[in-house]
Parts: sequence; C-alpha cells; structure tokens
Amino acid sequence: MFKTRYALPGTAPATLTGIEPGEGAPPQLRVVEYSRDTYEELKPKSVAELPAPGLDDGKVRWIEFNGLGDIDALRELGEKYGLHPLALEDIVHTGQRPKAEAYDDQLFIVAQMIYRDPVDDRLVGEQVSMFLLPGLLITIQEDPDCDVFDPIRERARVGRGYIRKLGADYLAYALLDAIIDHGFPILECIGEGLEDLEDEMLAKPTKTCIAKLHDYRRTLVHLRRAIWPERDLVNNLLHDESTLIGKETKIFLRDAYDHAVRVMDLVESYRDLTASLLELYLSAVSQRTNEIMRVLTVMSGIFIPLTFVAGVYGMNFENMPELKQPAGYFACLGVMLIIALGELWFFKRKGWL
Amino acid sequence: MFKTRYALPGTAPATLTGIEPGEGAPPQLRVVEYSRDTYEELKPKSVAELPAPGLDDGKVRWIEFNGLGDIDALRELGEKYGLHPLALEDIVHTGQRPKAEAYDDQLFIVAQMIYRDPVDDRLVGEQVSMFLLPGLLITIQEDPDCDVFDPIRERARVGRGYIRKLGADYLAYALLDAIIDHGFPILECIGEGLEDLEDEMLAKPTKTCIAKLHDYRRTLVHLRRAIWPERDLVNNLLHDESTLIGKETKIFLRDAYDHAVRVMDLVESYRDLTASLLELYLSAVSQRTNEIMRVLTVMSGIFIPLTFVAGVYGMNFENMPELKQPAGYFACLGVMLIIALGELWFFKRKGWL
Amino acid sequence: MFKTRYALPGTAPATLTGIEPGEGAPPQLRVVEYSRDTYEELKPKSVAELPAPGLDDGKVRWIEFNGLGDIDALRELGEKYGLHPLALEDIVHTGQRPKAEAYDDQLFIVAQMIYRDPVDDRLVGEQVSMFLLPGLLITIQEDPDCDVFDPIRERARVGRGYIRKLGADYLAYALLDAIIDHGFPILECIGEGLEDLEDEMLAKPTKTCIAKLHDYRRTLVHLRRAIWPERDLVNNLLHDESTLIGKETKIFLRDAYDHAVRVMDLVESYRDLTASLLELYLSAVSQRTNEIMRVLTVMSGIFIPLTFVAGVYGMNFENMPELKQPAGYFACLGVMLIIALGELWFFKRKGWL
Amino acid sequence: MFKTRYALPGTAPATLTGIEPGEGAPPQLRVVEYSRDTYEELKPKSVAELPAPGLDDGKVRWIEFNGLGDIDALRELGEKYGLHPLALEDIVHTGQRPKAEAYDDQLFIVAQMIYRDPVDDRLVGEQVSMFLLPGLLITIQEDPDCDVFDPIRERARVGRGYIRKLGADYLAYALLDAIIDHGFPILECIGEGLEDLEDEMLAKPTKTCIAKLHDYRRTLVHLRRAIWPERDLVNNLLHDESTLIGKETKIFLRDAYDHAVRVMDLVESYRDLTASLLELYLSAVSQRTNEIMRVLTVMSGIFIPLTFVAGVYGMNFENMPELKQPAGYFACLGVMLIIALGELWFFKRKGWL
Amino acid sequence: MFKTRYALPGTAPATLTGIEPGEGAPPQLRVVEYSRDTYEELKPKSVAELPAPGLDDGKVRWIEFNGLGDIDALRELGEKYGLHPLALEDIVHTGQRPKAEAYDDQLFIVAQMIYRDPVDDRLVGEQVSMFLLPGLLITIQEDPDCDVFDPIRERARVGRGYIRKLGADYLAYALLDAIIDHGFPILECIGEGLEDLEDEMLAKPTKTCIAKLHDYRRTLVHLRRAIWPERDLVNNLLHDESTLIGKETKIFLRDAYDHAVRVMDLVESYRDLTASLLELYLSAVSQRTNEIMRVLTVMSGIFIPLTFVAGVYGMNFENMPELKQPAGYFACLGVMLIIALGELWFFKRKGWL
Repeated sequence: MFKTRYALPGTAPATLTGIEPGEGAPPQLRVVEYSRDTYEELKPKSVAELPAPGLDDGKVRWIEFNGLGDIDALRELGEKYGLHPLALEDIVHTGQRPKAEAYDDQLFIVAQMIYRDPVDDRLVGEQVSMFLLPGLLITIQEDPDCDVFDPIRERARVGRGYIRKLGADYLAYALLDAIIDHGFPILECIGEGLEDLEDEMLAKPTKTCIAKLHDYRRTLVHLRRAIWPERDLVNNLLHDESTLIGKETKIFLRDAYDHAVRVMDLVESYRDLTASLLELYLSAVSQRTNEIMRVLTVMSGIFIPLTFVAGVYGMNFENMPELKQPAGYFACLGVMLIIALGELWFFKRKGWL
Repeated sequence: MFKTRYALPGTAPATLTGIEPGEGAPPQLRVVEYSRDTYEELKPKSVAELPAPGLDDGKVRWIEFNGLGDIDALRELGEKYGLHPLALEDIVHTGQRPKAEAYDDQLFIVAQMIYRDPVDDRLVGEQVSMFLLPGLLITIQEDPDCDVFDPIRERARVGRGYIRKLGADYLAYALLDAIIDHGFPILECIGEGLEDLEDEMLAKPTKTCIAKLHDYRRTLVHLRRAIWPERDLVNNLLHDESTLIGKETKIFLRDAYDHAVRVMDLVESYRDLTASLLELYLSAVSQRTNEIMRVLTVMSGIFIPLTFVAGVYGMNFENMPELKQPAGYFACLGVMLIIALGELWFFKRKGWL
Repeated sequence: MFKTRYALPGTAPATLTGIEPGEGAPPQLRVVEYSRDTYEELKPKSVAELPAPGLDDGKVRWIEFNGLGDIDALRELGEKYGLHPLALEDIVHTGQRPKAEAYDDQLFIVAQMIYRDPVDDRLVGEQVSMFLLPGLLITIQEDPDCDVFDPIRERARVGRGYIRKLGADYLAYALLDAIIDHGFPILECIGEGLEDLEDEMLAKPTKTCIAKLHDYRRTLVHLRRAIWPERDLVNNLLHDESTLIGKETKIFLRDAYDHAVRVMDLVESYRDLTASLLELYLSAVSQRTNEIMRVLTVMSGIFIPLTFVAGVYGMNFENMPELKQPAGYFACLGVMLIIALGELWFFKRKGWL
Repeated sequence: MFKTRYALPGTAPATLTGIEPGEGAPPQLRVVEYSRDTYEELKPKSVAELPAPGLDDGKVRWIEFNGLGDIDALRELGEKYGLHPLALEDIVHTGQRPKAEAYDDQLFIVAQMIYRDPVDDRLVGEQVSMFLLPGLLITIQEDPDCDVFDPIRERARVGRGYIRKLGADYLAYALLDAIIDHGFPILECIGEGLEDLEDEMLAKPTKTCIAKLHDYRRTLVHLRRAIWPERDLVNNLLHDESTLIGKETKIFLRDAYDHAVRVMDLVESYRDLTASLLELYLSAVSQRTNEIMRVLTVMSGIFIPLTFVAGVYGMNFENMPELKQPAGYFACLGVMLIIALGELWFFKRKGWL
Repeated sequence: MFKTRYALPGTAPATLTGIEPGEGAPPQLRVVEYSRDTYEELKPKSVAELPAPGLDDGKVRWIEFNGLGDIDALRELGEKYGLHPLALEDIVHTGQRPKAEAYDDQLFIVAQMIYRDPVDDRLVGEQVSMFLLPGLLITIQEDPDCDVFDPIRERARVGRGYIRKLGADYLAYALLDAIIDHGFPILECIGEGLEDLEDEMLAKPTKTCIAKLHDYRRTLVHLRRAIWPERDLVNNLLHDESTLIGKETKIFLRDAYDHAVRVMDLVESYRDLTASLLELYLSAVSQRTNEIMRVLTVMSGIFIPLTFVAGVYGMNFENMPELKQPAGYFACLGVMLIIALGELWFFKRKGWL
C-alpha cells in the first residue's frame, strides 16, 4: 500500500537518491499567506520565487511542494529554508514511520495519509512530510493531484473556525487531524465489509470469502503500521517543549490524540473480529465437510450391504437352492428391507439423519 | 453496538455535525436540586429556563439534557455554562472512548453505558457525557427514554445513602458506578449462555453453536472496548488534582475502580473461555468426522471385497469350473464369511470398532 | 467455582444486599487470644460478647466470624470495631478480586481460598476477608464448616513456630500463606491429571479426552484469576508503609510472595501444556482420520476397478466373444490380478501401505 | 523434570519437611580452601568438622554439602553458619524459582542446574542452593554424584584463569556461569533435533513426529521456566548493593547476564520454531488427506458410473433390445470409454490429476 | 543462519576457544588512516606492524582484522590495544546478540550483519565486532572475503559525504547503518516472495507452498532475533555518556535508530502476514477437501442406489415377475431416472452442485 524507497545500503546519509529519473511528477508549488484578516494565494514557478525565510510580519505561510520528480528543486528548497539534510532524505525515501523530529529551530513531521483513490476506489497511502518553522509550514507530498487537505484549504480561504486566528502550529495540527480523521470513514467501510462477509460465511463459506478476509487482514496490518506511530507522533507534539507549538494548539492536539486512539481502537477491534471470522469460516467449512461425509456414509452404509445381497443372488452357481424357491425373490427383497431399516435405525440413533 | 458518529475529515474542530436533520429525539430537560434537607425537581422547557451558572448556595444541581435532536439547544447549553467546544463536539460524535478530560474549571467525562433494551432484550450501548462543575453536574444522553440511572434518581429523591450528604462529585461517581456495575448482570448472563453452549457442543456440535459463539465473542470484543478505558477513566478521576473531586468521594471512586477491574477480569476470563470453547467445538467436529469416516470405512471395507467376489461368480463365462461344483455356492459363501471375519479382526485390532 | 454476588446496579454503595434470606449459614463466632505464654479460646454467642475493641494488653486476638447468614450481626460487628462500610460490602459481595486496602488505621484484606471439598472431591473457592487492626485480626468466611486454617489454629494452640512470638500481622501472614500454599497440592494434582491425559491421547484420542482437557483449561483460567492478584496483594502488604505490618513479618511475607510467584509459574506452565496438549489431540485426530481415509482409499482403489471388470463380464449381451473362449475366465482373473498388483504398487509408491 | 517438594499448606514457615525418611542420599561434605598461592581440599565427616565461620585469613572457602538425606545435618549446618531458616526451607523444598535473596550479611542464591544425565541421556534438573558469606561459599545440592561443576573444581585446583585471584563472589559467579552456559549444548541438541524433525515431517508426517514435537515443546516450557528467572537472578546480583559482590566480579556477572539472555533468546526462537513446525505438520497432514481423498474420488468417480452401466446390462429382463444387437457389447464398451474419458477430462480440468 | 560458537560450560571466562584448528581463515589485516585531507591505506602482514595505540594526531584509523583462523594473532591484537579479554571471548564465540558494552575507555560493539551470499544467493549472517577507541576503530569479522562495507570504504577513499569530516565514532555509525540498511533489500525480497506465495496459494495450494512459507517464517524468526537487539544497541549508543561518541554523530545515530525501527516494523508486519498466509493456506486446503468430498458424495449418492436397482434385477431367482413384463426393462430405466433426478434435486437444494 505504501511505496517504500530506500537508499542502497552503505550510501552516505542524507543522499537524495531512490527516485528513478522520470519517475516522480514535477513539483507544483503553492503558497498560501494569511493572517486574521488577509488571505493570499500564490502559485510560484520555482523555488526561487518562494517567500524569503524568516519573515516576521505576523502572517502564517503555508508552502506546498507537491511532486518528487525534481530532486534539485527539493535540494534548493532545503537550502533556502535551512532544512536538515537527514530530513530531506526522509522525504525522498518514502514509506517512513510517522514521526516528529526536532532539529534546532524546526520541527520535522512525517505522516502517512491514507485515502480512497477517487479513480479506482482502492486504498492509497501517501507520505506527507512537514517542516514547522516559526510562522511557516512547508509540506511535501509525492502525488501533486490527490490529498485529503481540500477542506482545510477551504477553511483557510473562507476563514472558518480557528484557522486564521492561530499560527502555523494550528495549521500543522489541522493537517494531521485531517489525516487521522480519514481513518474513520475507511474503517467504517471495512466494518461494513466485515459484516457482509460474516453473513456470507454463515450462509455459504466459499473460497472468495477467505480471499476477501485475507485482504481485510492485510489492509488492517498496513493501517495498524501507519496509525500506531501516528498516535505517538501526536503525543510527542503534545509534549514538545520548544516554542514552536503554542498552548492553544496543544488543546486541539489532545483532541487529535484522542481521535488517533479511537482509530487504533477500531483497528484492533476489527483485527479481533477478523480472527473470529476466520475461525467462523474454518468451523463452517469443517461443519459442511462433516455434513457431506454424513450423507455419503448414510447412503453408502445403506446401499452397500443391499448391493452385496443382490450380488450374491446374481451369481451363476448351478446349485443355489434359494433361487428355485418360488418366494425366494420376495423373501430376498424382505431381507433387504429389514437390513435397510436396521441401518436407518442405527444412523438415527447416531444422530446422523 | 455503539453508534459511531464522526465529522467529515478536515472539518474544523468543534463543529457540531454528524446528526442528520430529524434523526435525534428533541432534548428533554430535567433539573434536580438538592441539599442535605431539600429536594426539588423541575422540567424546564428550554435551555434559557435552566438555573443560572455559578450559583453558590450549597445546593447540588443535576441538569439532564437527554436527546441530541436539537443541535442549537446544545450549543446554547454550552454557551450558558461555558462548556468547551471540543467537549461539545465529543458529545455529538458519539462512540467516544470513555475518558475524563480537564478543561480549566470543569471536568468533562464520557462513559459508555451498556444495558439490555427492555423492548427487544438486545444489548444496547449509549454514550453518556457529563460536565462536572462546582456544585453542578450536567449529563447529556442521546436516548431520552432509557438509561440505567433510575435507582440513583430514587436515592436522591428519598435521600437514601450518602447522595444528599455529599456534593456533585459524588453524584458523578454514583452515575459512573451504576454504569460500571451494569456490567455484572450482563456478564452473568453471558456466563450462563456460555455454559449452556458448552453442554450443547459436547452433546451435538451444530452450526448454530458456532454462530452463537461468534456472537458472544463479538459482544465481548465490544464490551472490552467499552470497559477497559472506563477503568482508566475512574483511575484518572482518582488521581485528579483539581478541587472538583473531594476526598470523601475518592474513597468511593476507589471502590468503583475495583468494580471496573472485576468486570474487566470477568470479560477476560470469558474471552479465554470462548477461545477454549471454540477449540472444543473444532475438536468435537473433527472427532465426529473421524467417527463418520470410521463407520464408512468399516462398512465399505467389509462389503467391497465381498461384492467383488459375488461379481466374479456373476460373470457369464461359459467355462467357469467352480460354477458347476454342487457345493460351489456354499464354498463361496464360506469364503465370503472368512473374508468378512478377517476384515472384522483387522478393524478390531485397529480399534475402529 | 467462585460464588459471585453483586448489588443491583445503582444501589447505594455500602449496601449489604445480595444474600437471599435463609441463604447463608448463621455466623459462628470464635475468639482466640494468645500471647507468648498464654492461650485462650472462646466461643461467644453474639457480637456483643466479643472482646472490646482497642484493648492494648500485649495479647493478639483472632476473631473468626464464619457464616454470612445474618447481615445484622455483620453490621453490628462493623460498628463495634469501626470497620469501613465499603469493606463490609465487599465481604457480602463475594467473588472479589484478592486485594489489600488501607482504611485509616485498619487494613482490609480479601483473599480467595481454594481447596478440595472433602465431601465430593471438587475444587471449591471461598472468599476470606480479613481486617487487620493493632493487636487484632478479624476474619470473615462464608462457609462455617470448611477452611484451610486448621494447621494454623493448631500451631497457635501448641505454640509451635513463630506464631505466638509475633503479632496479629504474623497471624494474617500465616493465613495468607496457608491459602497460597494450598495451590501446590491442587496444581500437583492437575499436573498428574495432564500427564495421564497425554498418555491417553497418544494411545487413543477420544471425545472424553477433549472434555477433560477443556475442564482443566477452565479450572486453570479460574485459578489464574484467583492467584494473579494474590501475588499483588502480598506485594502490597510487603510495601505497606503503615505500622500495622512489622519488619519481622515482612521477611515472611517475602517468602509468601515467592510462593505465590511459584504457584503462578506452575499455572502458566500448565496453561502452556494444555495448549500443547490440545494441539497434540487435534494432530492425533487428524492423523487418525488420515489413516482411516488411507485404508478406505486403498480398499476402494483396489476393488472398484476389479468389480467393474466383473460387472462387464456379467453383462448379458448375446454377442460377447470373450465369454465363449474356454480360457476366458482364467484370462479375466489374470487381468484382475495384474490390475490389483498395479494398484498395490501404486499405493506402495505413494507410501500409503 | 524438576522435583518439586513443598510443605503441607499451613505448616509453620521454616519447617524442614518434605523429604521422606530414607529418600535422599546422606550428605557428602567437601571443603576447598584456596588463596592466590595455596590450595587445599578436605573431606570432613560431619558438619562439626567444617571450618569455623567468620575466619578472616584471606582464604576463600567453598563448602559443598551434597545430599539432602539428613535433615539434622542440614539444620546443624544452618546453625553453625547462621543461615536463615527460611532459606534452609527453600533448600529442602526443591523446585524453587531461581532467585537471589539478601539476608543481613549473607546472600542466598537458588539456581536450577540442567544437565544431560550421563547414564540414560535424559535431561535432568537439579536445584543448587548457595550461601555467599564473606570469604565463604556454601553450596547445597541434592544429588551427591552428578553436577556441572567439575571444570570449576579443576580450575581452582590448577589455578587457571581468575578463580584463585578473586574472592568467594567470583566463585559463586563461576558456578552460576557454568549452570547458565550448560544451556548452550542442550539447546544446540534441541535445535538439531528440530531440524531432523522438520525433514521428517516434510518427507512423511507420522504420529511419532507429533509426539516428539510435543516432547520438545514440553522441554522448552520447562527450560523457559528455569532460565527466565536465572536472568533476573544474575541481574539482581549485578545491582546488589551489599559489599559481598566486588566490582571486578560484576564485570564477569555482566558477561553471565549476557549469556543468560542469549540462552533465553534461543529458547524463545525454538518455541517459535516449534509453533511453526506444528503448523507445518498440520498442513502436511491435511494436504495428505486431501491427496488421498482426491485419489479416492477420481477412482470412484470414474468406475462408479461404468459399474452402473455394466449393472444395467447385467439385468435379466426378458425384453432388453440392446442385448440382442450383435454390436451391442462393443457399443456398450464404447459408451463406457466415452464416459471414462469425459470424467478424466472433468478431473483434469479441476486439477485433481 | 548464524554460526553459534560457545565455550564448554565451566571453561574460565575470557578463554579463546571454540574454533577448531584449521577452521577459520587466516586473518587479513587492513588499515585505513584518514583525516579531512589525507587518506592512506595499508595492508600490514602482522599485528606487530599495526599502528601504535594511542596516537593523537587528529587522524582517524580503521583497523580491519578479518578472519578468525589465528587465535594468537587475535590475542596479540587484544594486548596491543588493551582490549578487554571478555570482549575478545565474545568475538570468538560468534552468534552473540548485538550489543554495546562500555569497558573503561573503549566501547565494544557487536552486530550481526546479514547479506545475500553472492555465490549461492542464500542469506548469510556474520558477526561483526568493533572496538571504538579515541581516534581508532577496530573491526573484526570472521569471513575475510565478504561484507557489506565496500560502499563505506569507497566513501572514505573518495571523501564523499561526512565521513572524512567526522571522527571514528562516525565511522562506527556508518558501518552500523550499512548493516541495518541491508535489512531493507532483504525484506523487500521477502515481501515479494510472500506476494507470489499468496497468488500461488489462492490458485493451487500445494505442498511446496507450505514448505516455502515455513522457510520464510524461520528466516523472519532469525531476522527478528538479529534486528531487535540492534535497535537497542543503537539506542544505547545514542544515550552513551562517554566522550567516545560526539554530538554530531548522535544526530546520525538517531537516523540509524529510525531505520532500525522501520526494519523491525517490516519484520513484524511480515510475521503477521505469514500467519495470515498460513491460515489462508489451511482454509484453501480444507475448502478443496470439502469440494472433493462433495463431488465424491454427489457421484456416489446418485449411482449407488441405481447400481443397487440394477443389481436387484440382475439376480437369478427363477420367479421374478417383473423380468417377464415386456415393458419391465423400460419401466426399470424410468424408475432409475426418477431416482437420479430426485437425488439431483436433493443435492441441488443442499447447494452441493
């Protein structure tokens, strides 16, 4: 689900490799500047056109750098804003665990955004990296087209909620919260899928059931791997002692932490449920096998002795006294009936009918 | 079991959405005021008629706000008593983990109340949110008709026990304790169900057994998810350092903590038991399959060779010397008998009879 | 195994309910007073005749109150010695987790005593509640006839060991130690049962095996639930900071702690063993099913084609040239022999013979 | 594997019971005295002849007391050297968890020595108890003939390594290290056994495989129970704050700790491996059952319809037109061939051939 | 996967045994000296030719000692640089847990390097031991030909990255990082293998699948055992308080720690996945068995009664009225058809067709 890139082992740290030439999309830049009363949106062409670092005019700036196709532009970005080379490496080597790392006067945050691809309805994971500097938030994504941040862009534009009243730390919180909250609809969908699966299994346990169940389990393994550390990440931010994260934002982060715990809780409950479903499936299959065997055994058990009796009187010995009895045939049928009834009684007593 | 509501990801925090228009019941208000000697019960029509906040007349006030159908009334309530917007959001977005959160001079408590629906005897989970302020407890529920608090209302009315002698903190404890203690009858009922199931499985492992077992397992997963954090919630209250919770109440909270641990203990024991029951079931089914196979194999094993012998002497070759022997038929029957006895001896030795 | 009583949810705390009228036995009182040189045993008729609280004459007093049939007497006892109402409630609501709770100048200890019922050789669990006050130990049990404390009574009477040299804290230790040590013979017995079961399973895995195994597992779940917290209880006493427990007694408590850990260790090992036994059983059954199938398949595999050949020459077509050959019958038998040998070779190569 | 003795529950603590008269071997005493330059070995006849306690002549004394058949001698030993009665009890009640307990000026250490019995190649567990006093180490074992300490005796005699240069604490370390290191060859042997078992299972999963596997699992459960606490024991010694254990010895203890962790690591890995092997076995058996069923089904599937056809034309109706056709027989054979080919094609398509 | 050597239990600590004579390769020495501007590479013939210890000329020296075939040379090395004898023992006794141990002024680091053998494409584990002294890093490996350090040698030679700018601690970091990062390609390869296996299992669950899966599981157990402690090792270095590890290097170590956590995460996810795959396999096999049984039962169920009917009319009784009916044969065929259709309807209703 997550693209994992890594440097060749032994490569010098902070080397920006791993993206094949022509692989990523060219970066699209976007700058949003806002304060309580103003709002401006720019689309610079190159890193050079981005606002100078360290501006202290009370405005919050959000720089989006979407697309990893141009490593040089990324390097330029890093140099312009003094981003730490090890952090830049983590941006390129996607598939990082969500984490928050403090470098001097900046906070580097990595999160894994999970959303349903609008085109083919598949779950997609994408790494979002953020640098939180005073009054400035830089976010870097791989896919320039898709993300889960549109409602936040809208909130900033319209000025709804707290976003224009608080600083860049609140913006970072808002993005993280959107990422975490995306877990709810995804898990709701999984939960409904599991319920359908359960009905299907109880009705008729087929091969597709188990393939679906395995799919859900794998998805939950991936989700768990993305969300567990997200909880720790938010917790780290909550207990961050730098001045980058203000006291008002921390109350919101506590809320985000709570959401992360709820999402994890759901993931764990669904894992428990899939385990229980698997056992349900196995039990249902072995119950069915048992039933099939029972039918086979009852049928064979009744007819095999009868067929044997018929076989005996089908033998061609010259001297078989029974064959000459006028009532022999009917006596034979009677014996067969008695045998069959005896068998039926036996199977009935065993509870196999 | 629990209705889970959440905001669309990316919505501004503290947005009171998630309830469809016309979904919830209109809120019913109820105020109980009591002190050691007085007791009064009011049914105000609107939030405006509720007692003013911050009254300091030694009385304890319990405001019930039951029904989430009118978000504006809820917002009005929040404004009147200075409830924190993030807490209000948690009230609307039901399905929260039980938790206790301190906001300045108020304590926000969320618990999940589980009770047997009187109508259809199904387990129902409902979120109860409480705000503990000095001398004031506000509780908010979704369903105005059903809850587990009637005995406490009765105790307050009659003045039985400690309720009228202690403050609003004791009232909050009493409600929490009622919620936690409701776990006992529910688990007792599950325990009895599991015992019946065990007898049924040992007698005859059918398909319904496993569906029932799966049901119990799912219920226990849900219960566990509701009760684990309840324990932590009570623990948090126990170690709360604000002045909202008095020393006398803490002794009672220790008792509630103990009850929560006992309930959890029972849940865990029953989980262990369901795991063991599943294995019992699987073993019983495979034992049954084994037995069925044994009967089939013994029957087939005995009659198949005999039928073959009968088949041989049923062939129509012109030159089959045995057929002409006068004693041929009887010799043939004798051979069959010997074969059958040999088989019986073989199966006996294998222990399959 | 343990009787679990609880108040109706919502009942005021410290309400002594849960025992049906006429359910419990009437309480039997017994007082033992001893010092280093004296020993006296009394059987008071009522709580009023019990020694006054707070006597400070250097003697240790052990008051036994056995039988929960008279709630009023229990209440009287509580009032006389200033026992905390919440503790009294825990006495009536049996099935408590073992625990030690400090109330001002008293220590309330609950333990679960497990012993083999002398009448029907069944494991029985019974709650023992103790109050440790300066120079005074009050114990309360439900069943007046049975307990595991006779050796300690004997030790006190005869003055063997340390019991008469140390205080009421040592007496409490001695009772706890007797409860914990009772785990050893019970687990030894389970261990032997499991060994027998293993032999039985390897010899012939029957349905009773699995029922027995399930029984052991359930017993171990119960034992575990009773013994885990007993360890913590002893540990709490070890680190108790009140003056109720003296330094000399703590050395003995360390020993009791060690015993509790050993008992837990055995319980956990036996749980591991039962899990392994279950797998042994399942493997044995599936191995047996496999063997049965093999026999069935080999037999059917050999005779079904032969019977078919016999069937072909049993057909009544007028024009079947083979039937007229003088050697046809023998050729046919020869072909059957070749087919049978071929099949045998095939099954031999498969390793099924 | 370990003999577990315990006092009757309720016995006074520090009672030396549990050994039947005539059960244990009579104790054999052995004293080794050494310093950097001297070495002496004595075999005293009785406890009275042992060196006086508290000698402070710079020599290290190692007193071995091997054999638990004479409780009085043990009691005498305890009195002579001031050993704590609770510790003496732990010596007699073998099957203790490995532990280190400080009593005033002595350190009491219990370890479980596991070795391969030279006679019948079985794993044997034996408890070794040690008292570490200044300049003096007393070790007590049950079996006077067998232990794992010969190399250490040899090192002391010859003066190899550090043993004669350091004190009694180093001697205790050396014994513990020998006990811990004995885990390596035992686990190596288990590891090889598991590898053989794996090959055997993949080749042909028989009943003996599973019995062997269960045996390994049980052994690992026992080993685990003996070795986990050994790690903690060494750790406790490492952090012991008394003067009994010197700084130089602690560096060696750190090494022993490391060894204990490695042994535990191996035990855990092998436990994982046995779990995986069990699954391998179950899969192999169910795969084999599947294969057997397939052969049975293909054979039955092909011949049962053919036999039916033969049966039809074996009927004796007077008016069966086909029988009179000259080519009827051959047409019938042809139909049978077509049916058989059809079946083969069907099974081929199913992938069952 | 890892060669595990250990001393005979009871051997004096710090004894360099365990390597059979002629077993290891003769050690190859290599010295690299570099500073910011200089770089020199030497291949001394013997330990005596190695640079003197304690040189303080600002250069970083990396001494490689590859090959454990000459214990005397190793001992000489230890004496020359004052390496602790217990550490030397750990070098010889390969199969250590990764760890970092401080000895006075040196830091001893053991890591387990895992790489794909270039010759036979098998995973190989090899122990790398390092001594970090001021300005000096000594590394010892067993196999002189293979390791994962070539890119680092190249970086030092060319002066790429930070390696020539920082001290010996950075060099140690670089080696550790190369070891840890080697986990990524190995796990990527396992991940792809597991995906292929999943497809294979869903298509056709054969015996090789399960053997492969078991292989992956065993590899993951080994990887886990090597990588878990590597994480702790890096963490220990991070929190090392000596002056051997500089502040700049610690930032890089934090990065290495992060990589170790990611590798562990992947290992755990793959373990989860293998567990899920095993269940998938078992379900698929039991589903297939079920299907096979169904075909067998349907076929037998239909033809066994028909064959019986044919058998009845194949009997040779003289007086069988039906046989004489002109339409008897056709009536009989009709009855057979009806029976067959009835059976088909029955199996259809059961859902077995």
